[in-house]
Amino acid sequence: MKRREFLTWAGAAGIAATALSGCNSERDDAASSADAGAAPTPAEPIRWKMVTTWPKNFPGLGTGANNMARYITEMSNGRLTVDVYGAGEIVPALEVFDAVKAGTAQMGHGAAYYWQGKMPAAAFFAAFPFGLTADEMNGWLYHGEGIELWEELYAPHGVIPRPGGNTGPQMGGWFRKPIESLDDFKGLKMRLPGIGGEVLRQLGVTVVNTPGGELFQALNDGTIDAAEWVGPFNDLAFGFHRAAKYYYAPGWQEPSATMEALINQDAFEALPEDLQRIVEGAIRMANADMLAEFTARNNRALKTLVEDHGVELRYFSDEIMAALFETSNEVLAGITADDPFAARVYDSLSAYRRDVRQWTESSELEFVKARQRYLG
Amino acid sequence: MKRREFLTWAGAAGIAATALSGCNSERDDAASSADAGAAPTPAEPIRWKMVTTWPKNFPGLGTGANNMARYITEMSNGRLTVDVYGAGEIVPALEVFDAVKAGTAQMGHGAAYYWQGKMPAAAFFAAFPFGLTADEMNGWLYHGEGIELWEELYAPHGVIPRPGGNTGPQMGGWFRKPIESLDDFKGLKMRLPGIGGEVLRQLGVTVVNTPGGELFQALNDGTIDAAEWVGPFNDLAFGFHRAAKYYYAPGWQEPSATMEALINQDAFEALPEDLQRIVEGAIRMANADMLAEFTARNNRALKTLVEDHGVELRYFSDEIMAALFETSNEVLAGITADDPFAARVYDSLSAYRRDVRQWTESSELEFVKARQRYLG
Repeated sequence: MKRREFLTWAGAAGIAATALSGCNSERDDAASSADAGAAPTPAEPIRWKMVTTWPKNFPGLGTGANNMARYITEMSNGRLTVDVYGAGEIVPALEVFDAVKAGTAQMGHGAAYYWQGKMPAAAFFAAFPFGLTADEMNGWLYHGEGIELWEELYAPHGVIPRPGGNTGPQMGGWFRKPIESLDDFKGLKMRLPGIGGEVLRQLGVTVVNTPGGELFQALNDGTIDAAEWVGPFNDLAFGFHRAAKYYYAPGWQEPSATMEALINQDAFEALPEDLQRIVEGAIRMANADMLAEFTARNNRALKTLVEDHGVELRYFSDEIMAALFETSNEVLAGITADDPFAARVYDSLSAYRRDVRQWTESSELEFVKARQRYLG
Repeated sequence: MKRREFLTWAGAAGIAATALSGCNSERDDAASSADAGAAPTPAEPIRWKMVTTWPKNFPGLGTGANNMARYITEMSNGRLTVDVYGAGEIVPALEVFDAVKAGTAQMGHGAAYYWQGKMPAAAFFAAFPFGLTADEMNGWLYHGEGIELWEELYAPHGVIPRPGGNTGPQMGGWFRKPIESLDDFKGLKMRLPGIGGEVLRQLGVTVVNTPGGELFQALNDGTIDAAEWVGPFNDLAFGFHRAAKYYYAPGWQEPSATMEALINQDAFEALPEDLQRIVEGAIRMANADMLAEFTARNNRALKTLVEDHGVELRYFSDEIMAALFETSNEVLAGITADDPFAARVYDSLSAYRRDVRQWTESSELEFVKARQRYLG
């Protein structure tokens, strides 16, 4: 009973991790003792490290990781304390996955597309071009096949993934010159990670992977011509408006971006069951809270950018959007042809998108269009 | 430090509740002992009751309340166990607020517009016509003035409110005959609660407040001509398609609906601090999870209704939507003219909507329209 409840908690997802962990018997023992009312309390407080891909305390992303850690510490009354480290403090940003795998840190926070070099399928758990809105993505993750597939992908590494935040819709990027036709992409040097970057490469862009911390400088001194980071709230903090004037929407490449919480599986399994539930609960809370924060703050930041800093908000033309869509499909076909697991994940996402978008289009889209019409 | 963290947790919201509780000194004492590492553990397991406005285990709404209770029980390792009761088991649906106020139950789960008879402002914490999407609403609640105002409204009753789920966009209702012009509303007998019901009354509808459990029968035997409940996932479970054929979108009256978790303030204050954090955490988790579940399930249900049960999905005409918008503004002006607190809440919501919708329209709306265009 207790055990069945655990599986429900994690969604169908729990099954894969448990089966692959080889720890079924221990888990059952823990559950029995909890049933008998004897809380398995650790003798001493446990101290965990969380390494992140973000600059320490970076607004929204880094502070989201901080919140997650604080929720764990407070709900466990300090029995499990999590200390958060910024990129480079223990390991560089792009080594977060390996650090959690090795147990150097018990938790990590970042985004799954950072690991697409070693696992092409990973990118899909963050975002894909013309993919899903934040609400649709949470539906697939928690009430579709999402978390289950994600766990299966990381299980050979002894790492448990969870949705650890969502930025909501991202923007299409900052450009030093207007992008009025497909020709304007040719020869452009731009920072845009993930599958979207590959799409731009096909359209003649030289795509670079400048780390976040160096991005403003590169854009400002003309080392790069364009850069995509997140959206108004984060971009304002980085000061991109001082280096580029044109801010394009929509974020075709990331209609929402799921952040990632990573847990070292051995460390997780060693926790008493209530602390396991607290860790999972804190991650769920942080996942939801980040989206609420970005939603509330993005527009204020967009207003500041446009009204106080003279930024021009522009929209990609239909010609450009159509080409981005066609090229995205080609790139996605290439990725899934080369990697069977990526194909499984994309098949699941495509089937889900085919269904869920009908609901989005007949409900929220119709409403938001009507509200726009009447509020003017 | 610990105390400041608590305030951050609840948002600015915590301030009002603490100030009004008169329990500052006790709270500070508890915080100090927690700082010293001595967890305030209750001598015996605590058992709470949660009364709800839903039929027991009703899909999505009732099960969302069940999940919330289970999260508390599991994260606290049974130190705090919450038993959930369906409507009528301890108190009738519409007496949930009073039961939590009286301490008959320590928690409640429902929707704030059920209490608009005693507090007109309450309706705004669930939904208002042409209001906010679910993501926008969570932004206002957690990172705007939402929870703070909601706490202030309920504080005189010793009840703490929290967002306890969101159904996402609702539908415009089930009709036994097509609604093709404003004339078709005249003389219609319809169940539609909240502010939306008042709008329809202005347009000539006889609005009734049939309880959920009697709704199918009333629609089926022609006692009423139309009914609005939630959306496809919930409506399919109630079988409305067997009684009415026309299913209208969009849900102008509830572009999203926030459910409500209620906590008896004295019971909450008597908890040790870690259990307080667990209660709040579990409520946040349930709030996010309900939206993910409705998003994932609504379309599957809509498909079943249309393809298997011959339901006709229709959209209100522009003439009708424009009249609903105009009449909504008149009704909202009336409510806020009569009740100063409702005016404060509506002012806050209106200012927030003016800003946030620009972001929604330039990001998610542009994206969803483009995706619809290319996916066809």
